[in-house]
Amino acid sequence: MTRQNPSKQAAADQAATRMWGGRFAAGPSAVMQEINASIDVDKRLYREDIAGSLAHAAMLAERGIISREDGAAIAQGLAAIRAEIDGGNFKFDAALEDIHTNIEVRLKELIGEAAGRLHTARSRNDQVATDFRLWVRRACDELTLDLKDLIAALIERAEEHAATLMPGFTHLQPAQPTTFGHHLLAYVEMFGRDVSRLADARRRLNESPLGAAALCGTSFPIDRHQTAKALGFDRPTANSLDSVSDRDFALEYLAALSIIAIHLSRFAEEMVLWTSDGFRFVSLSDAFTTGSSIMPQKRNPDAAELVRAKAGHVIGMLTQLLIVMKGLPLTYGKDMQDDKAPTFAATDTVRLGLAATAGMVRDMVANPERMKAATAGGFITATDLADWLVRRLNVPFRSAHHITGELVRLAETKETALEKLSIEEMRSVDPRITEDVYSVLTPEHSAASRTSFGGTAPDNVRKAVAAARERFL
Amino acid sequence: MTRQNPSKQAAADQAATRMWGGRFAAGPSAVMQEINASIDVDKRLYREDIAGSLAHAAMLAERGIISREDGAAIAQGLAAIRAEIDGGNFKFDAALEDIHTNIEVRLKELIGEAAGRLHTARSRNDQVATDFRLWVRRACDELTLDLKDLIAALIERAEEHAATLMPGFTHLQPAQPTTFGHHLLAYVEMFGRDVSRLADARRRLNESPLGAAALCGTSFPIDRHQTAKALGFDRPTANSLDSVSDRDFALEYLAALSIIAIHLSRFAEEMVLWTSDGFRFVSLSDAFTTGSSIMPQKRNPDAAELVRAKAGHVIGMLTQLLIVMKGLPLTYGKDMQDDKAPTFAATDTVRLGLAATAGMVRDMVANPERMKAATAGGFITATDLADWLVRRLNVPFRSAHHITGELVRLAETKETALEKLSIEEMRSVDPRITEDVYSVLTPEHSAASRTSFGGTAPDNVRKAVAAARERFL
Amino acid sequence: MTRQNPSKQAAADQAATRMWGGRFAAGPSAVMQEINASIDVDKRLYREDIAGSLAHAAMLAERGIISREDGAAIAQGLAAIRAEIDGGNFKFDAALEDIHTNIEVRLKELIGEAAGRLHTARSRNDQVATDFRLWVRRACDELTLDLKDLIAALIERAEEHAATLMPGFTHLQPAQPTTFGHHLLAYVEMFGRDVSRLADARRRLNESPLGAAALCGTSFPIDRHQTAKALGFDRPTANSLDSVSDRDFALEYLAALSIIAIHLSRFAEEMVLWTSDGFRFVSLSDAFTTGSSIMPQKRNPDAAELVRAKAGHVIGMLTQLLIVMKGLPLTYGKDMQDDKAPTFAATDTVRLGLAATAGMVRDMVANPERMKAATAGGFITATDLADWLVRRLNVPFRSAHHITGELVRLAETKETALEKLSIEEMRSVDPRITEDVYSVLTPEHSAASRTSFGGTAPDNVRKAVAAARERFL
Amino acid sequence: MTRQNPSKQAAADQAATRMWGGRFAAGPSAVMQEINASIDVDKRLYREDIAGSLAHAAMLAERGIISREDGAAIAQGLAAIRAEIDGGNFKFDAALEDIHTNIEVRLKELIGEAAGRLHTARSRNDQVATDFRLWVRRACDELTLDLKDLIAALIERAEEHAATLMPGFTHLQPAQPTTFGHHLLAYVEMFGRDVSRLADARRRLNESPLGAAALCGTSFPIDRHQTAKALGFDRPTANSLDSVSDRDFALEYLAALSIIAIHLSRFAEEMVLWTSDGFRFVSLSDAFTTGSSIMPQKRNPDAAELVRAKAGHVIGMLTQLLIVMKGLPLTYGKDMQDDKAPTFAATDTVRLGLAATAGMVRDMVANPERMKAATAGGFITATDLADWLVRRLNVPFRSAHHITGELVRLAETKETALEKLSIEEMRSVDPRITEDVYSVLTPEHSAASRTSFGGTAPDNVRKAVAAARERFL
Repeated sequence: MTRQNPSKQAAADQAATRMWGGRFAAGPSAVMQEINASIDVDKRLYREDIAGSLAHAAMLAERGIISREDGAAIAQGLAAIRAEIDGGNFKFDAALEDIHTNIEVRLKELIGEAAGRLHTARSRNDQVATDFRLWVRRACDELTLDLKDLIAALIERAEEHAATLMPGFTHLQPAQPTTFGHHLLAYVEMFGRDVSRLADARRRLNESPLGAAALCGTSFPIDRHQTAKALGFDRPTANSLDSVSDRDFALEYLAALSIIAIHLSRFAEEMVLWTSDGFRFVSLSDAFTTGSSIMPQKRNPDAAELVRAKAGHVIGMLTQLLIVMKGLPLTYGKDMQDDKAPTFAATDTVRLGLAATAGMVRDMVANPERMKAATAGGFITATDLADWLVRRLNVPFRSAHHITGELVRLAETKETALEKLSIEEMRSVDPRITEDVYSVLTPEHSAASRTSFGGTAPDNVRKAVAAARERFL
Repeated sequence: MTRQNPSKQAAADQAATRMWGGRFAAGPSAVMQEINASIDVDKRLYREDIAGSLAHAAMLAERGIISREDGAAIAQGLAAIRAEIDGGNFKFDAALEDIHTNIEVRLKELIGEAAGRLHTARSRNDQVATDFRLWVRRACDELTLDLKDLIAALIERAEEHAATLMPGFTHLQPAQPTTFGHHLLAYVEMFGRDVSRLADARRRLNESPLGAAALCGTSFPIDRHQTAKALGFDRPTANSLDSVSDRDFALEYLAALSIIAIHLSRFAEEMVLWTSDGFRFVSLSDAFTTGSSIMPQKRNPDAAELVRAKAGHVIGMLTQLLIVMKGLPLTYGKDMQDDKAPTFAATDTVRLGLAATAGMVRDMVANPERMKAATAGGFITATDLADWLVRRLNVPFRSAHHITGELVRLAETKETALEKLSIEEMRSVDPRITEDVYSVLTPEHSAASRTSFGGTAPDNVRKAVAAARERFL
Repeated sequence: MTRQNPSKQAAADQAATRMWGGRFAAGPSAVMQEINASIDVDKRLYREDIAGSLAHAAMLAERGIISREDGAAIAQGLAAIRAEIDGGNFKFDAALEDIHTNIEVRLKELIGEAAGRLHTARSRNDQVATDFRLWVRRACDELTLDLKDLIAALIERAEEHAATLMPGFTHLQPAQPTTFGHHLLAYVEMFGRDVSRLADARRRLNESPLGAAALCGTSFPIDRHQTAKALGFDRPTANSLDSVSDRDFALEYLAALSIIAIHLSRFAEEMVLWTSDGFRFVSLSDAFTTGSSIMPQKRNPDAAELVRAKAGHVIGMLTQLLIVMKGLPLTYGKDMQDDKAPTFAATDTVRLGLAATAGMVRDMVANPERMKAATAGGFITATDLADWLVRRLNVPFRSAHHITGELVRLAETKETALEKLSIEEMRSVDPRITEDVYSVLTPEHSAASRTSFGGTAPDNVRKAVAAARERFL
Repeated sequence: MTRQNPSKQAAADQAATRMWGGRFAAGPSAVMQEINASIDVDKRLYREDIAGSLAHAAMLAERGIISREDGAAIAQGLAAIRAEIDGGNFKFDAALEDIHTNIEVRLKELIGEAAGRLHTARSRNDQVATDFRLWVRRACDELTLDLKDLIAALIERAEEHAATLMPGFTHLQPAQPTTFGHHLLAYVEMFGRDVSRLADARRRLNESPLGAAALCGTSFPIDRHQTAKALGFDRPTANSLDSVSDRDFALEYLAALSIIAIHLSRFAEEMVLWTSDGFRFVSLSDAFTTGSSIMPQKRNPDAAELVRAKAGHVIGMLTQLLIVMKGLPLTYGKDMQDDKAPTFAATDTVRLGLAATAGMVRDMVANPERMKAATAGGFITATDLADWLVRRLNVPFRSAHHITGELVRLAETKETALEKLSIEEMRSVDPRITEDVYSVLTPEHSAASRTSFGGTAPDNVRKAVAAARERFL
C-alpha cells in the first residue's frame, strides 16, 4: 500500500531535459511527479505518436517550414525509435512524464538539434488528440475483427442446432418452444449491431486534429489536409479549439463498448444458467471451467462469471470519462489526461471478453435431450392452443386466451400436461373443441409452425443462418 | 413519504377485466399493483401504441386473418380513443396496469367483441418494443430540431463576434488570443456531432419488431414487411427472440443524450465563469438569472447552473438502464419495464437544457472590453514570440521555447509585459533579437496570424460561419 | 413529448410576489421558470419546512429579535398552513418556485406583515439545508422500520425451515448441503448491516445548519443551540460555509440505499431462479406474479424482476448526485437543487422494494422435496469425503482433495453417485478407505456435522434465529 | 494492443500443481488463464494472506486438528515466505493464478507435506474474504492518517488567515465577506466527516469470516473466536453463507472514498479558479504546476486538475463494484473476484489525491490584496444594509430586502458602490435611513459582525481553529 516514491535525485537530474523546464527553478515534488506522469499509460500510443510525427515532419519539409535535411533526419530517427520500442529496447523514463517527451528526448539523442524543429507548428495538445484518435480508430478495427470471429462461431453453432428444440423463455419461465439455433442467432443480431455501431463511431472520429496546435492554430503555412491524408483521416477538424478540447470520440467509443459488454454479460448469464444443475442444457470443457480448492467435484463456469462481471468494469470506465468531461471549460484541461486509462482498460476487457465468449461458444457441448425435456413442462404450447381456437373456432383472441387459461388451470389441478387432457375434459371447458387440437400441442409442431419472418421455425433458422453469413461476415 | 395505497376494492373490481386475469383467483396485492403498474410512465406512448395497432389491424384484415368489418371497427375505435386522449378526455386507470391494456379495454367498450381480435398474432412484448422504438425515433427527430435551433443561435452570435478578441484558455489560464466567435463555433462542432450521432442511432433502430409476437413469431400468415412499411420502418427485425429482448436502441440513444448533456454542461460552466466577477465577459438578463432571498444584490446564473447539474441526471439515467440490462437472460424480463422512465426523463431534461441554452446564447450580452482586457495579462503572445524566433532566426522550436521562457521570467521579475521589455532587455537574453519582434506581440496580430485551416483568425471564423450554415442548417 | 408551457401571463402575474423580485424588471421566461421551479419536487418537504420555521420563530421571539406577538402570529399561521396541506386544501403555485416561497406567501396572506419578519437571520440556503436534513433523518427512521419488518419475516421463515435441506451454491453449482433457514438468515445479516449503516448516517447528519444564514452566519443575536435542540438535532453545525454547501448526508444516505438495493436484487434474483422450472424450490402466489397477454399458462415472478431492476435506479440516483456535487466551488450553487429529486426517488424505490420483498418472503411456499432432490446430484458431499480422509486417515487436506477428485471422476465415468460407489471401487483409488466413509456421504449428515460457529447445522440455525431476534428486532 | 499470450507450455507445466487440478485432463486455454488469473492484482494481499494463515494454523494446532510440529513448520515456512516477498525475492507465477496458491505452493517447496495440512477446515472463499477485510481495514487506518495530515495543513493555514478578508461566494458570485481562514475550515469539516465515516466502516467490517470455509462452515472442531481475536477482529461473522458472499464492506468503503474524492474535487476546482487570471487569490509554486510545450509563459495548475478528474475514477470504481454485486445469487460467484482491482485502484487514487492536496495547501501563497479587492465590487454588504434596516428601523426583513434591492438598483444605475451613495440618494428610496447606515457597509465590519455560532467573524474563526485541533487531531 506504500506509494511508489520515485527518487527525488533522479527527478532533479531529469529536470533540465523536461520540455517545459526552462522556467522552473526546482523539480516538481515526488507527489506531483506521481500524479502528473502518464508514461505508464500512454506508452501504448507510441506507434500512433511516431506516425503522427512522421506525417507532420514530412509536411513541414514539403512546405519549406523545416529543411529537407532536417525532415529526413527526423524521419530516420523516428523509424529507429519505433524499431527500438517494437524490439523492447527502449528505456521509458517516468521522469520524462509522457510518451511524447520520451520519444522527443530520444530523438534529440539520436539526431541532435534537428529534433528540436519537429515541434514547430504543433503542440502536445493537438499531438495527443491525434495519437489518441488514431489509437481508438485502430481499436475499432481490431474489435470489429473480434466481433466477427464471435459472430462466425455463433452462426456455425446455430446452423448445427437449427432444429434443436429448446424452451424459449420470458421471465426465465418456459414460454414457447424455440430452437437452440434461433436462440444463438439472437446474439448474432446483437453483435452485428455492435459492428455497425463501431463503424459509425470510427467514421465520425476520423478527422485530423493535427495542426490545431495548442488551441488556436498556427501562423506557419502548414497544410492540414496533407497530414490528414497521410494519416488516413477523411479531413482535418474544422475548429481548432474544439480539436484540442473534444473527447467525444472516446465517449462514443466507450458507450459502444458498454453495449458490447451488456451483450456479453447476457450470454455469460445464460452460460451460468445453462451449465447449472437446474438446466444442464450445455456443458463446458475444462478449458473454460475451474475446480474448487475445497470441493473436489465442482466444475465452475468461471470464464462466464468473469465475462459477466466485466460489464461492471466497462460501464465504470464509461462513467469515469463522462464525469471527467462534465463541466470542463474550453479548451484543454489536464483533467483530460485521464481519458486514456479508462479507454485502454475497457478495450482490453472487452477484447478479452469477446475472445473468452467465442471460446465458450466453440467449446460448449449442447445437451439436446435436456433441452427437449425442458419443453415438456410448463404448458409450453398453450399459445398454440389459443391460436388454434382463434383459427378453427373463430374465437376472438382475448376469449381464446381466457379459455386456454381455464384449460391450463384444469391440467394443473389434475397434475397433467395440456396434451394429456382427454377430449372430454377439453370440452368441459369449451364444447367446440375437436380432436384436431392435439395436432398443435407438440413442441415440434409449435416450433415448426412459427414461420413468420424472423420466427423460430427450423426452416427460417436455416435461411437466417445463410442471410447472417451474407450480412455480417 | 407515505406510499400511495390504491384502494384494494378498486383493485379487486378491476381484476375481471385484466388481460391475464383468467387464471388468477385473487387480485394482486396493493404493493404488487404499485410496483407493477407502469401507466403513469407509459401513457406517453399512446400515440405510438395506437399507430402500431392501426398498422397491425390493417395488415390482419388484408391478410384475411380478421374480417374487413372487424378491421374497420378496430380502426374507427382506435381513432376515437386517440381523439379522447388528445383532447384530455380519457380516464387512465392504474388498475389496468399499462397503456396497452387501458386502450384495449376502452376499445372493447367502444366496439365490443371485435376488440378481442386485435391481439391476434401479437403480444405485449412485440407491441411495447414497437411503441418504444417509434417513440425514441420521434424523440431523435425532435431533438435534432432542438439541436439545430441551438446551432443556429450559436452561429448567429459567432458571426457577430467573428473578430471580438478574447483570451483562449487552457487549464483556465490565458493561453493565446482567440475570438469570441471562434470559441462559439467550437460548440457548433460539438452539437453538430450530436446531430450526426442521433441520425445514426435513428437509422439503426428503424427496424420493426412487430410480429415477433411473444418471442417466437407466429403461425398466422402475417406480413411483417407491410406493418414495417406502414410505420415508417426500413424493414422488420431479423430475429424474433432478439426483437423482444433488445433495448440497444434505448441505450445508444441515452449514450447520445449523455454526450449532448456533457456539451451543455461545458457551455453552462463557461456561462457561470463568464458572468462571475473575475471574468465578466458576458452578462445575462433577468430572464436567465435569479435573485437571492437574503442578498438583494445577487444576479445568479441559475439557468446555467441547473443545465450543468442536469448532466448528472442524464448520466444517471444511462447508468440505470445499462445496469438493468446487464446479465439479463433472453428474452423479455420484467426488469425491462424500467426502460422507459429513464429514457423519458433524460429526453425531457436534455430538451429543456437545449432550450435553456439556446435562450442564454440569444440573451447574453458580450463585454468586448473585458474580454480584450483579459488578453493583456498573462504573456498571452509568448507563443508568437517563440514562433518569431523560429521563423526569423531559424532557431529550433525547442530552443525558441527556452529563450521565450527566459524572456517571460525577465518580464515577470520586472513586473511588466513582454511587449514592454526594451530591445536591450530582450537582447540580454538573446542578442539576435531585432525590433521586428514587437510586431508579433499584440493580441490582434496574434489572432489574425493564425490562418491555418480551422485556426482562429477572424477571416477564418467568417468562412467557418458560412461553412457551418451549409453543413448544419 | 411537448414541454409543459406554463402560462406566461400567470408567470407575469406572480412576478410581484416573488421573493427576490424587487430588482427584476421582467418575469423570467417560460423555459427559465420550467428549469428553475422545484415545487413539484420539494413540496414533500412541507412538514420539515414548517417545523424549521416554527423553531426559528420561537427562538427569534425568545431572543427579542422579533416581538412575542409576531412570534405567536407566525406560529399560528404556520400551524394553519400545515393543516391546509395535510388536508389537501393548499394550492401549490409553480410560479412561486419552491415550497419555502409557497408557504411564506401563504403566511403573509394569513397573518400579514409579521410574516415578513420570519426570514430575519435566515436564508433559503440554511433553510433548505435544514429541511432536507430533517427529511433524510425521518427517511432513515422509516426505512429502519421497513428493514426490521423484512428481517422479522425472514427470521420467521428461517425458523420454520431451520432443518429444511437444500443445496448451498457457489458459482450457481451445488456445493454443499445447507438448510433453507440458514440461507434466509444470510439475508438477515445483510439487512441487519443496512440498519446499522442507516443509524450511522443518521447520527452523522444530525447537526443543525439553521442559522448559517446565506453562508456567513448572521449579526443578529440568534441562539443556534436552541433551534438545534428544538428540532431534535444533537448540535449546530460548526462552520457556516460548510453548512450551506454540504450534501454529504444525502450522498452517504444514497450509498446506504444502494447497498440495500443490492441486497434486494440478490434476493430477487434468487426468487426468479427458485421459481423457474429448473429449480422450483419455491412458488409464489398470484399476489406476486402476473400472467401473460399471449401465453395463458405463465406465472411470471414480475415483482421479483422489478425489485431486481430497481437496483439500477438507486445506483443511478447515487451516481447522479455524486456527479452533481463533483467539482462544485463553495458555497451554495444552484446545481445543488438537484439533490432532492434523486433522494426522494431512491427512497420511494427502496421502500417499495422492501415492502414487495417482505411480501414475497411471507407469501412464498417452499418445496422441500425439490430442494432435497437437488442435493442428490452434483457429488455434493465430496468435501465431507475429503474431510473424512483427513480425519480418519490423517491425509493432508491437499492430498485428500486430490483423492476425492479421483473418486468423483470414477463416479462420473460410471454415471453414479459418490455414495453408490462400492467399497472396492473406492479402494481402487485409495486402499485405506473403510466402510465408515459411507456414514458421511448423506446430505443430512453433512449439514448436521457443520457445527462450527455460524455453520449450517440445523441446531446452529435455531440458535442463530434466537440470536437474530435479540440482535435485530 | 496485443493481448499477452502466456506460454501454453508453461501453463501445461503448471497444471499438475494447481490446487484444483486433480480432475482436469487438459490445462485451461490461454484466454481462460488470462481472464482467470488474479495474481497481478491480489499479490497486494500477501501480508494479510500470511497473517490469516498464521492465525489459522496456530488455532488448528491448538485444537489438535493438526500436530504441533506441523503447526510450527507452517508458521516458520510462512514467515520465510513473508520475508522473501518483503525483500523482493519471491517469484510470482501467473500460472498459479492467485496469491493464495502462489504462497501455498511455495510453502510446500519449503516445508513439504505439512503444507498440505494448512488448508484443513478452510477454503479459498473464507480465506480471500478474510484477507480482503484485513486489507480494507488497514486502508481505513492509513487513509485516516492521510486525512489527518490534510486537516492539520488546513487548520494551520486557516489560523494564519483567520482575519484575511475574502468574498464568500454563492453561485460563484460574491455574496458576503468572509475570511480565507473560515473558508479553509469548511474543508476541515468535510474531511473530518470523512474520518468519521471511515471509522464507522472499519467498525462494521471488523468481523472475521475465517472458518466459514467454502460456504457452510466445517465439521472440524475449530475455534473461530480464537482466530478472530488473533487477527484483531471484534468477533467472528454470524452466518457462514453471508461470510463468503458479502462484499458490503468494500462497497461501503468505496462509497466513503467517493465522498472524499468529491471533497478533494471541490477544493481542486477552487485551486483552479483561485490561480486563474480572473481571481489570482492564491499562487502555487513550481512544485504543483507545470509549463506548456508550446506556450512558455504558462503555469498550469495540473495537480489540481488531476485531483479534480480523479473523482471520476473513484466514482467509476464504486459504480463498477455495485454493478458486479447486483443480482448475484448466493453464495460466492467468480464475479466477486473483480472486487479487489477497483478497491485497490480507488485507494491509490484517493491517497495520492490527499497527498497532492495537502501539498498544495502547504504550498499555496495567498494574495490578501486580491482577495480584499474582490470584496469591493458586487454590493457585497447589501445584506448588512438589509439587516440594518431590520434592526434600526424595525422593518420586516422582506421589506428590508425590497428596499435594499432598490438601493442596489440605484447604485448600479449610477455605476457606484452602495457605500458611495450619498445619504440623500439613500433617503430618496427610504427617508428613514440615517448616517449610521454607513457603519455597516464595509467588508471588515460585515465579517466581524457575523458572530453567530459557526459564523465568519475572525474571532469565531480563531476559536474554531482551536476547537478543530481538539476535535480532529
